[in-house]
Amino acid sequence: MTLLSPAHAGTRPGSTPGSTTPRLELHVPTALARFRRLRAALPGTAVHYAVKANPHPDLLRALVAAGSSFDVASPAEVLACLEAGARPGDLVYSNPIKLRADIVESAGLGVRLFVVDSPEETRKVAEAAPRSAVLCRLVTSGEGSDWPLSRKYGCSTTEAVDVLTLAESLGLEAAGVSFHVGSQQRDPSAWDAPIEASSRVFAALRAAGSSPWLLDLGGGFPAALEGGAPALDAYGAAIRRALRKRFGSRRPRTLVEPGRSIVADAGRVVTSVVAVVHRGDTRWVYLDAGVFTGLVETLDEAIRYRLETTATGPSGPCVLAGPTCDSADVMYEKQPVQLPLSLAEGDEVVLTSAGAYTTCYSTVGFNGFAPLPTHLVG
Amino acid sequence: MTLLSPAHAGTRPGSTPGSTTPRLELHVPTALARFRRLRAALPGTAVHYAVKANPHPDLLRALVAAGSSFDVASPAEVLACLEAGARPGDLVYSNPIKLRADIVESAGLGVRLFVVDSPEETRKVAEAAPRSAVLCRLVTSGEGSDWPLSRKYGCSTTEAVDVLTLAESLGLEAAGVSFHVGSQQRDPSAWDAPIEASSRVFAALRAAGSSPWLLDLGGGFPAALEGGAPALDAYGAAIRRALRKRFGSRRPRTLVEPGRSIVADAGRVVTSVVAVVHRGDTRWVYLDAGVFTGLVETLDEAIRYRLETTATGPSGPCVLAGPTCDSADVMYEKQPVQLPLSLAEGDEVVLTSAGAYTTCYSTVGFNGFAPLPTHLVG
Repeated sequence: MTLLSPAHAGTRPGSTPGSTTPRLELHVPTALARFRRLRAALPGTAVHYAVKANPHPDLLRALVAAGSSFDVASPAEVLACLEAGARPGDLVYSNPIKLRADIVESAGLGVRLFVVDSPEETRKVAEAAPRSAVLCRLVTSGEGSDWPLSRKYGCSTTEAVDVLTLAESLGLEAAGVSFHVGSQQRDPSAWDAPIEASSRVFAALRAAGSSPWLLDLGGGFPAALEGGAPALDAYGAAIRRALRKRFGSRRPRTLVEPGRSIVADAGRVVTSVVAVVHRGDTRWVYLDAGVFTGLVETLDEAIRYRLETTATGPSGPCVLAGPTCDSADVMYEKQPVQLPLSLAEGDEVVLTSAGAYTTCYSTVGFNGFAPLPTHLVG
Repeated sequence: MTLLSPAHAGTRPGSTPGSTTPRLELHVPTALARFRRLRAALPGTAVHYAVKANPHPDLLRALVAAGSSFDVASPAEVLACLEAGARPGDLVYSNPIKLRADIVESAGLGVRLFVVDSPEETRKVAEAAPRSAVLCRLVTSGEGSDWPLSRKYGCSTTEAVDVLTLAESLGLEAAGVSFHVGSQQRDPSAWDAPIEASSRVFAALRAAGSSPWLLDLGGGFPAALEGGAPALDAYGAAIRRALRKRFGSRRPRTLVEPGRSIVADAGRVVTSVVAVVHRGDTRWVYLDAGVFTGLVETLDEAIRYRLETTATGPSGPCVLAGPTCDSADVMYEKQPVQLPLSLAEGDEVVLTSAGAYTTCYSTVGFNGFAPLPTHLVG
């Protein structure tokens, strides 16, 4: 438990002490700083912000102005980017499985680069967006990640060569390869194996006379959540090393798709304590935000937010639960959190590094509790 | 896998073949039939529909007209019931943990009966809604339920006696006891132990001169999901037996709080196949609805919907996933489902008994995929 630092104790610029809780306080300049830091850590790599992490229009506008490109997965996200001032050529449509109508609509809006991972999807893109470019997504292990990816997406290197060869035969441009090492990835060397695998796909295609030119290194760069992770520079160094080792002088153009690492640290979910109840030997703390109002990533206690509070004094363990009358609305129970023993109804509890995958994961208002609103601060 | 029966093959009254998917088709008459069946199975017990399961205004209006009472957990749900024509006296506010402002607002709207489960919450109700009535919630094991409740709510019988005694000393009416045996409870005898426990609380209070009069038997009555469950009559018989055995001639007034058992069977989620992809030996079927568009209860594969489809021919196993570019958006993977081998892009797949905890669990539009809409049919 980190006590609230004086800089955040109601005096943060733009913060309105006493505002309604729960709310996400989003500090766009922090997101821009993270964007610039990631870009500096990966020179020559295009940064495509993953809109799904937090699609707030002010954030998208600021990122466009800062020179960001975007990673999208639906026509609604394409439109959000275009409305924020992005050009269609700045977008990679990274959802490997797409509704046919969504491809048509997105291509109509000017999107030209789509991710695929199967012959079926390649044929679909060839029909719905003729002459566009495709990246083929490789499967990865997800090891070392807090939110490991399942086998939902991705194919083997052999299949990728077949898919990209098929793409060319269907009049598509075989642009290259993509992969994703899993969200909140704590191991910078996690990119080594998929970069090596990608280099084999590139070599096979080049041997067959194709000219792949683009490698999508995915997302997975961490935010400063509980437990910590290496600095972004360490990721940049590890990735540059792997690219040099595997591609030598024939390094393709590269892009990354960060979401969490850009926006998580730019947001804090401010909640109020609804009740503190002792059940047997266990202290239960109930907040006015929970699993159904944005804190979905606490399911299975996968993502552990750092907590700050205005309450002071010695701390002790407690279970943290949400406000709805749903027994699944419990954030941390197996591994309790530490909060001051003095914590009482009405105290504020702040979940830090919570700008990603919170507002967008809110339900439409389950049990009559409104979706988590965003308050821009700063 | 159940093939689509002729009665549902696009000719169902009110259904619009070719309507946009995904959608929840809600058939209010089926919900009313379930309401009447549960009321008949439990003569003399008030049926309070749990609004959180599906708060569609047309459903609430129809239930009011049929004589239903309601179980609510927030001022928004109180208002939804009042707007549908319910009287405040028809409502039990069953959330044991409540925001102080929500109690004040609900009491101002006329709500008089609140559930508590701790001295802290009892004091809060006494201050925020003086002279109202309280039920004290007992903890239960949740055994035999598909969606077991955690230890989030409820206290021991000893604590309940203390809580209700405290309530009286604070000017509240100690109305009685509540409990909940867990959602989609497949064992009608699950009510035996908490009814026995409740009878001990009643006896202790009566011995001390109090006059508790109300027993809230909670929800948990099942819908006809995959795997089946006994008929509602079996639950009615088991509960009546337990009440007779434990309370004899001093049976209190009783109420139940069904949600799923009323509305689940009244709804079907109609989806379209986005893609069928073979990954190694595994067939992946991607639908245009998923975990973030209403199918949250598939998490950990807890609730298994029965599937119907227009595709025909022999079936085989497949993993079922949703449309968002999120690796968590997978419904059934550990225990695959059976669907026709001929299933292809554009085919409809219907999830039956899906009227509860779907539309209300939708996200606000994660990844640009809109919340699950409701189409009234019939």
